[in-house]
Amino acid sequence: MSSPPASLPLTRASVEAAYELIKPYIHETPVLTNTTLSQLASTPRTPAELEGTEWAGQNPAKPVLRLWFKCENLQRIGAFKARGAFHAIERLKQEPGWEEGGGRLKGVVTHSSGNHAQALALAARTNNIPAHIVMPTISAPAKIAATKGYGANVVFSGSTSVEREAVTATVIAETGARLIPPYDHPNIILGQATASFELLSQLPPSTTLSGIITPLGGGGLLSGTALTCSSTSVKVFGAEPSFQGADDGRRGYLSGERIPAVSTLTIADGLRTPVGAIPWSIIYERRLVSGIYSVSEAQIRAALRLVYERMKLVVEPSAVVGLAVALYNEEFRAMVERQGGAQGWDLGIIFSGGNVSLEALGKLFSD
Amino acid sequence: MSSPPASLPLTRASVEAAYELIKPYIHETPVLTNTTLSQLASTPRTPAELEGTEWAGQNPAKPVLRLWFKCENLQRIGAFKARGAFHAIERLKQEPGWEEGGGRLKGVVTHSSGNHAQALALAARTNNIPAHIVMPTISAPAKIAATKGYGANVVFSGSTSVEREAVTATVIAETGARLIPPYDHPNIILGQATASFELLSQLPPSTTLSGIITPLGGGGLLSGTALTCSSTSVKVFGAEPSFQGADDGRRGYLSGERIPAVSTLTIADGLRTPVGAIPWSIIYERRLVSGIYSVSEAQIRAALRLVYERMKLVVEPSAVVGLAVALYNEEFRAMVERQGGAQGWDLGIIFSGGNVSLEALGKLFSD
Repeated sequence: MSSPPASLPLTRASVEAAYELIKPYIHETPVLTNTTLSQLASTPRTPAELEGTEWAGQNPAKPVLRLWFKCENLQRIGAFKARGAFHAIERLKQEPGWEEGGGRLKGVVTHSSGNHAQALALAARTNNIPAHIVMPTISAPAKIAATKGYGANVVFSGSTSVEREAVTATVIAETGARLIPPYDHPNIILGQATASFELLSQLPPSTTLSGIITPLGGGGLLSGTALTCSSTSVKVFGAEPSFQGADDGRRGYLSGERIPAVSTLTIADGLRTPVGAIPWSIIYERRLVSGIYSVSEAQIRAALRLVYERMKLVVEPSAVVGLAVALYNEEFRAMVERQGGAQGWDLGIIFSGGNVSLEALGKLFSD
Repeated sequence: MSSPPASLPLTRASVEAAYELIKPYIHETPVLTNTTLSQLASTPRTPAELEGTEWAGQNPAKPVLRLWFKCENLQRIGAFKARGAFHAIERLKQEPGWEEGGGRLKGVVTHSSGNHAQALALAARTNNIPAHIVMPTISAPAKIAATKGYGANVVFSGSTSVEREAVTATVIAETGARLIPPYDHPNIILGQATASFELLSQLPPSTTLSGIITPLGGGGLLSGTALTCSSTSVKVFGAEPSFQGADDGRRGYLSGERIPAVSTLTIADGLRTPVGAIPWSIIYERRLVSGIYSVSEAQIRAALRLVYERMKLVVEPSAVVGLAVALYNEEFRAMVERQGGAQGWDLGIIFSGGNVSLEALGKLFSD
């Protein structure tokens, strides 16, 4: 495979530089509050609600939480992934020799059936660069159509990672396209970091966040958020589904060793991937993340329902795991109670995306 | 039944006065634009798309439309109805003799199973006034729970209008509560009018709307919008479902006679009511509405899908009939082409509400 493009050091200053670079291409997404949800998060759960959980019989935590929602579901292509893709392309354009070597004609390539596919397709088309997207043959027709709709050349592969990588290697050999991975790359991480950087710039002057919680899949968003907050007083937390071992990040964080593979069918389909090596170095080795918490499928579904019914926002299941932690994870809530006291915490929650089919949504709530 | 509260003349000045009165109680809801939807609205439909419609074989219209969405789905209780309810209560409080006659203890009453029920319950509770809401026994449990959740006294009745009115009369006889009807009342109309009044105040200085289109059910919102625009250059249009005769407003408008009853099960369940007498006097007799257009169930569903997928907003089916007219009604589109020419139109579209159950949504898109 070709070497990835050169990149900046993984610091907050680089996040700021990335933000300046991609600003013309992305939306400044709104930051919303919601009285009902902040009140719910600040209401102790009942002992009955804790029955059957690992916290059964304990005193429910009494955190005070004021929630600030960063709405990346309203970002271009419907997810924060647009930030990383535009940043990776901008850096590629600046790379010495890329233009002269015909890089603009050779294009870019990635393997993804999710939001990164559409993000890279959009960023490439915006710059008149061809994009080759390797997708499993079994991908949802709507996702294939959307990616083609952004002008990408969709190349099909089998669904195992070995098959996808073989097809990707063939595309690179035939076209000379540059690989833009979905999360395990510094420029992608710095791009995703701009979501939290922007969030911090949008708060009222009187508000200082005590923490930001983001979903954790491959780790681009969480590690980027950690870089944004690395020289601030804002603590950073990750949120994962626990279903079928999808909490690989949390388990790795507790054991001290990254878990390189995971196989889960959690409804939070954006979070089925293991944490990548570079994100891991930021999240764990550099100790820039203060904790990783997990939630059940039922809790994700309950949080999703609240966002639809109370905020009237369309979000994908992956987007609400941070909210689910704030509402339902007693370990997190007890920590906020301890650290925030009566004053409480202002907590940033990143709604990572809103790409869910209405059919899938119907199935989620059809009983 | 008791007489309704005294009210102001039905003019734009009264709308402004209503707005000042209710401002402290309602949200200033956002006005959004969406490039994809404006582009879609400005793209001629294909001859194939017109096959099987009344416009088959005609040249598709070529309107230029820039759409401005007033998001009343983000209003308190999730619909514009909060505006009318708060306004009716404020006027009641100002009515000579109401306070002295024990009006505050006697409370208010209405019959509604929809958004007006929750709106009146909230407005009453905010003012520490009891609210009695007559709902059919067969109402959705979620709606009953929501209305009770706002502190209202829910009284059950049969589902015919005769049964509901009998129960309402009994409540009035027993409690002395004042009737606050859902749409056929000047103070309700003036309250609903503030949605468009606010919209006009939120546009960039360089933008002048050529028209505003709103859903038409009982007519409170449409007639209120007509009052807002009555001394301006902004034309006002109504949008209705055509299913099972739900286009009573349009048919009445064309025949010159109000149609007082309608029986339809359109998916736009907020629009199943006939137009009320006072709204009709504004819409038709005073000639303050320039046209009423209807759309099919499939077109409502298609517009709904676009709003979910492209705007990431939760709206109820009734909310998107105006957008469906702009996208799919050739009569409306040809009129915009004629009147707007190459310059086109800036069109305000009122998203009236967002109260839809996820289960109902799932059913709508389950095939």
